Amino acid sequence: MHDRFAFAGGEAGKWEILSLRAIRGRGLEPVRSLTVHPVADNLAMPPAVWVLTGAMSNLRYTTRNEVTGLRAKQEPLGRPGARLAALIPIKKSKAWWELAQDERRAIFEEQSHHTAIGLDYLPSIGRQLYHARDLGEPFDFLTWFEFSPEHASAFDDLLSRLRATPEWAFVEREVDIRLRLT
Amino acid sequence: MHDRFAFAGGEAGKWEILSLRAIRGRGLEPVRSLTVHPVADNLAMPPAVWVLTGAMSNLRYTTRNEVTGLRAKQEPLGRPGARLAALIPIKKSKAWWELAQDERRAIFEEQSHHTAIGLDYLPSIGRQLYHARDLGEPFDFLTWFEFSPEHASAFDDLLSRLRATPEWAFVEREVDIRLRLT
Repeated sequence: MHDRFAFAGGEAGKWEILSLRAIRGRGLEPVRSLTVHPVADNLAMPPAVWVLTGAMSNLRYTTRNEVTGLRAKQEPLGRPGARLAALIPIKKSKAWWELAQDERRAIFEEQSHHTAIGLDYLPSIGRQLYHARDLGEPFDFLTWFEFSPEHASAFDDLLSRLRATPEWAFVEREVDIRLRLT
Repeated sequence: MHDRFAFAGGEAGKWEILSLRAIRGRGLEPVRSLTVHPVADNLAMPPAVWVLTGAMSNLRYTTRNEVTGLRAKQEPLGRPGARLAALIPIKKSKAWWELAQDERRAIFEEQSHHTAIGLDYLPSIGRQLYHARDLGEPFDFLTWFEFSPEHASAFDDLLSRLRATPEWAFVEREVDIRLRLT
């Protein structure tokens, strides 16, 4: 089962937007709040200034050993203490998407240690990836992170480490949206 | 760039439907013709009995060596002699999608030789894969094949070989639609 979700930026919503910054490329229009809701063809969308859509999908690079390591440490989203969140929409370059699977895997993990870096911050920093590229969306991925206020600086460390990797040379648009549960 | 295409079954279209068979699971409503057209959010869909949508996307399993081998032999779609086509929508099981990337790759190529089998039929049997799963579609993949009448039996061989692989144990729905250019 795929599950599509819409991230709607607007004037009211469950998540208050603390900051919205363009890291690379064009940003998004500033809004006050974000609502996350499932997409269904027969459901009307609530009013919003912008809506980003993504689908929970299968793993694209992760090996069985890595899955086992992640599952041993990770906890579900929606934990009571996790009152802070971040939404990081990313678009990678044409050069990235024209690479073969083994080339992308090598950059993603053997050179950039993407999964290994994320593992260092589990279970504190919860994470869910949504795929958007095949949906005709402006971004390729929407990553949602949840954490408690005491782990906010750890989250900044995580992002700094990822943004310094060879993989990030292929990121041509990135927006960093920080949120707080209202 | 992703590119989404709609495969619309109805009463009139560029491709006449010669046969439409359910290979595994539920079939599709019989129709006379098929039209293939790009999807754009601002374009109205022509009338159709059913519409299947898929996106041209990045390679998911193919290594650089395999890409090089495929490109050396393949020719573009739309060749003048290629008056026959097939559309094969496929849905794989939950068990498939819950496998890790290395497990799916091993079944796909090391055990089932999916890419190697396809290579045996190039350039005669042209092929384009469309991904549909993340779009919330009833099928995971739509594969489009084009060939000249003299290669119709080679195409049947290709399908027989693929359907006999370990990978096909994970196929839970498959429809086989044969077409002729009108």
